[in-house]
Amino acid sequence: MKRFFLLMLIGGLLNTLAAQEMKPEDTEVWEPEPVKVTPGVFTAPPSDAIVLFDGSDLSNWIRPKYTVGATLESIKTMIENQQKTNFEGTDPEWMVKDGAMIVKPGGGAIETKQKFGSVQLHIEFLCPYDPGKESQGYSNSGVFFMGMYELQVLNSYENRTYSNGQAGAMYKQHPPLVNASRPPGEWQMYDVVFNAPQFNRDGSVKTPASITVFHNGVLVQNHTVLEGPTLYIGKSSYVKHADKLPIVLQDHGNKVRFRNIWLREL
Amino acid sequence: MKRFFLLMLIGGLLNTLAAQEMKPEDTEVWEPEPVKVTPGVFTAPPSDAIVLFDGSDLSNWIRPKYTVGATLESIKTMIENQQKTNFEGTDPEWMVKDGAMIVKPGGGAIETKQKFGSVQLHIEFLCPYDPGKESQGYSNSGVFFMGMYELQVLNSYENRTYSNGQAGAMYKQHPPLVNASRPPGEWQMYDVVFNAPQFNRDGSVKTPASITVFHNGVLVQNHTVLEGPTLYIGKSSYVKHADKLPIVLQDHGNKVRFRNIWLREL
Amino acid sequence: MKRFFLLMLIGGLLNTLAAQEMKPEDTEVWEPEPVKVTPGVFTAPPSDAIVLFDGSDLSNWIRPKYTVGATLESIKTMIENQQKTNFEGTDPEWMVKDGAMIVKPGGGAIETKQKFGSVQLHIEFLCPYDPGKESQGYSNSGVFFMGMYELQVLNSYENRTYSNGQAGAMYKQHPPLVNASRPPGEWQMYDVVFNAPQFNRDGSVKTPASITVFHNGVLVQNHTVLEGPTLYIGKSSYVKHADKLPIVLQDHGNKVRFRNIWLREL
Amino acid sequence: MKRFFLLMLIGGLLNTLAAQEMKPEDTEVWEPEPVKVTPGVFTAPPSDAIVLFDGSDLSNWIRPKYTVGATLESIKTMIENQQKTNFEGTDPEWMVKDGAMIVKPGGGAIETKQKFGSVQLHIEFLCPYDPGKESQGYSNSGVFFMGMYELQVLNSYENRTYSNGQAGAMYKQHPPLVNASRPPGEWQMYDVVFNAPQFNRDGSVKTPASITVFHNGVLVQNHTVLEGPTLYIGKSSYVKHADKLPIVLQDHGNKVRFRNIWLREL
Repeated sequence: MKRFFLLMLIGGLLNTLAAQEMKPEDTEVWEPEPVKVTPGVFTAPPSDAIVLFDGSDLSNWIRPKYTVGATLESIKTMIENQQKTNFEGTDPEWMVKDGAMIVKPGGGAIETKQKFGSVQLHIEFLCPYDPGKESQGYSNSGVFFMGMYELQVLNSYENRTYSNGQAGAMYKQHPPLVNASRPPGEWQMYDVVFNAPQFNRDGSVKTPASITVFHNGVLVQNHTVLEGPTLYIGKSSYVKHADKLPIVLQDHGNKVRFRNIWLREL
Repeated sequence: MKRFFLLMLIGGLLNTLAAQEMKPEDTEVWEPEPVKVTPGVFTAPPSDAIVLFDGSDLSNWIRPKYTVGATLESIKTMIENQQKTNFEGTDPEWMVKDGAMIVKPGGGAIETKQKFGSVQLHIEFLCPYDPGKESQGYSNSGVFFMGMYELQVLNSYENRTYSNGQAGAMYKQHPPLVNASRPPGEWQMYDVVFNAPQFNRDGSVKTPASITVFHNGVLVQNHTVLEGPTLYIGKSSYVKHADKLPIVLQDHGNKVRFRNIWLREL
Repeated sequence: MKRFFLLMLIGGLLNTLAAQEMKPEDTEVWEPEPVKVTPGVFTAPPSDAIVLFDGSDLSNWIRPKYTVGATLESIKTMIENQQKTNFEGTDPEWMVKDGAMIVKPGGGAIETKQKFGSVQLHIEFLCPYDPGKESQGYSNSGVFFMGMYELQVLNSYENRTYSNGQAGAMYKQHPPLVNASRPPGEWQMYDVVFNAPQFNRDGSVKTPASITVFHNGVLVQNHTVLEGPTLYIGKSSYVKHADKLPIVLQDHGNKVRFRNIWLREL
Repeated sequence: MKRFFLLMLIGGLLNTLAAQEMKPEDTEVWEPEPVKVTPGVFTAPPSDAIVLFDGSDLSNWIRPKYTVGATLESIKTMIENQQKTNFEGTDPEWMVKDGAMIVKPGGGAIETKQKFGSVQLHIEFLCPYDPGKESQGYSNSGVFFMGMYELQVLNSYENRTYSNGQAGAMYKQHPPLVNASRPPGEWQMYDVVFNAPQFNRDGSVKTPASITVFHNGVLVQNHTVLEGPTLYIGKSSYVKHADKLPIVLQDHGNKVRFRNIWLREL
């Protein structure tokens, strides 16, 4: 024990000496130089953004052949199919109008042709006013990162549902910190940092997926760590998948609109 | 070993059975209900924000008696003094003009009268055009969370300095992911999620401080974990401090302007 | 005739000589110096604006005792009453919620306590989604300058009505140049320059009222000259009135919302 | 005289009868229906806008062969040349950087390839900070409607010059109503309604040009009627010209920047 304290003492002295000998420039890091990005005005995409929807057409989107899974088993099947089919799809049936894309109820989900891992995403959405609807039935849709991690889209303005199922929730996993919803009929925004999970060779999780979300400029997910893919039924756990997968927008039977969708790969 | 596999098998079967018996509502969480927050329009403060500066006056700020430390030793002294003096200060000498507050070179740093731990912060700043200036000399200031964790403010548009010292850097620790600077003379924005460090009773670190920063809407710090307080000289490490401390804006001798400063406690 | 041409010739020569002798500074005008106004960010009020509604309360508004006239005769009665009663009124019954004021159907019109002549006005409005409603019945309200010159508020997105009765129309007088309506449920903006009419002592019109209107940033009234007060029935003509009168927002039985209302006196 | 009053009386009675017999629908106007225009978000161009500069290149601009005139004589020569040469020009030398076009001092004015008459114009500009410069020498440029009616561009923040020569002035004719300038280095906006003059066959003026200008959202020209083309020297008067002519941006030797330029033909 004495020896330990002696070592501590010596260590402390050395540290102090080291600090005294250090100069300000010793902690300057010059390389690599951060790449220049010209920011957009207001919520316009910055110079290095990939624009997924600018109001004109759905050319960056397809209708996938598979269905987003409800249980872990079906997620596994989906992932297997994804790896086989390479996410082939058909033209989406959603409508484009007034600079927005609109869910076609029954038309199925749509997904990006391009695949992504970790991203900064900006997306605007509008939940149509639909009196009489309630809970999960009121303007329901979702943004699925990598096709399986869902950020819920729902009218949560004066529409109570389960907390981990309302707007801003990581569906069935994490409620939003607060409810920052605007009324149905108004445009809303999500600004998201999604960090893709990383897997070891044996399929175990190296780093779980995490997400930070601002809803209309208000923080609702603060580097939330996900348990696994979003499941409608049951508790989730991770299933190893590819490094990059499409982003999916859900058709949940309501005419939710989206516009000004862009992301930056991280 | 056989016994192990048998247990695995049984466990797997039980899991499967459990999943089969689970219903969608089993994973619904209803309480607590997230509190309602009315978001602001554009970058206006949301309904639960604490407005630190709305363009009119410096009534929420004081000039502290202490100086922000350059070395770990001086940080320790500062923290000791903070705990003694309770952050007393005098009226700040900075100027308010055209809805902005302007650093008074030589007037010293200013800090919030109120103390904060983890926050979502919005702050706008303007680096005045000052040809001839370069590197750290060009429109330098900083936002110090808890008086010691500095998000650098600097003109980094066509002004090279060390990467961990440019705009968007956690000074002397983490360069920004990209350089999203606007030219000097233009207003810029930081949108920040700062998570205060947590300490054990013995002073050791339970959770280090972490920070997410958007610079003009572009992600530049992605849940970056800090090594300790910002130091001008030497390598940092944590020193236990209070749960809440003021936010400090630095006087680095340049007439940097700030406006529209608000935060939400997390 | 010869003499005429001779004079013309001499005049022309003199003009030429005069022009040749003129210096650039001869056409410089230094006084009076235009007053400095600090503009607002986005649609925030500039420094010289009078804010009529900032989202908090209706303290700048009253419920008038009179009713806005439908015919020229009733307008005359209204003007007489105005001059007698000095626009007394009671507290408005409209609701304030989420930073907006909402028409209370049956609660009557509201008007500004302060009186105005020529103004630059900014006002935002939201026509609630109300399927089944049509034509003039769909989210109808109005902005009455000087209590009698109405800029129509209506849902005119995919809702046909008579052209001089749709959103952006000077009601029953001038249709908007184009239909720049957003869908019901979304916030919309009017930016208006209203020039009050001027009367001679004998009550005849010296200068008629004129108006320029931008609807969501799109020009819909281009210095339109008005025929007189807005009438529901019949052709209008001017009736002499005071130089300054209140601005009135109409209750037409629909829960139209307003927010961010400010003006500058011209 | 008696007869006159009798006629007046009869006229009045007839009017009253007419009004009594009129129905609300008598003053409804249904055709033509205003064309639908989808407004832009914030200051983005609406759906019917012609975008002159979106930040990418100068493909809609040329460098004209002629010089903008200083006197009425030279304006006449310019107009003659315009009609001969059809505004031929060469590629502009101005630089495009960070989404803005920058005046190249000595590079000459630039003008739109397309010609316009009456327009709604949105244009953003930035006067670079340039200490030591003063009066007309500080970040001078201009927007010339039809190549000859100049809306002045200048740094007028804490930079006194003659009132009819400052930012927002119709140069050498009409000072702005107020000074709504932002400091040099910040982006500013003009939102303009320009009404082209109309001429009779004999060259006389049928309707003079008029202009309404918002500077950073603040009204600075309220349907101002112009005396004729902008002259550096001498008093102006009208010279008949074509119905449509290019819009010109001036090179006055200062590196003024422009961005987000769009217009709608009226």
